[in-house]
Amino acid sequence: MDPLVIVGYLAGTLTTISFVPQVMRAWKLKETRDLSLAMLLLFAAGVILWTLYGTWIGSLPIIAANTITFILILVLLGLKIKYT
Amino acid sequence: MDPLVIVGYLAGTLTTISFVPQVMRAWKLKETRDLSLAMLLLFAAGVILWTLYGTWIGSLPIIAANTITFILILVLLGLKIKYT
Repeated sequence: MDPLVIVGYLAGTLTTISFVPQVMRAWKLKETRDLSLAMLLLFAAGVILWTLYGTWIGSLPIIAANTITFILILVLLGLKIKYT
Repeated sequence: MDPLVIVGYLAGTLTTISFVPQVMRAWKLKETRDLSLAMLLLFAAGVILWTLYGTWIGSLPIIAANTITFILILVLLGLKIKYT
């Protein structure tokens, strides 16, 4: 596999899975007070545009990473709303 | 300007500035308990690789967004360590 694609997937894997411990923490603590709602909303809007950008330039790492990140951000948004 | 580049910059601006309200919230509340340290570390590693990927494919939106995001994540990491 092209090393460029590997770095892209590794980057996407890291920034995507980084939200897993955050979701788990919110889930476990049942606390999201220190999480900024504005951050989650802006980030969600951003990953939608990144997915569009990735589709446009034909970059599968960008499309895949941002689609999964979007789902995790939606879960965090749900937890933020539930526990606020 | 190429609409593709505009979407890229808009995406990068959103995901980057999203960390500003998060930094402000941690700063104001002096509380970062609900922020996951693992999230911050994984995200920081990811944006370093995204910057490398952006440099490789010659995408200025990716390089710019991830460089600034990295700085904001470093500030959040500092606040997380300070207030834990």
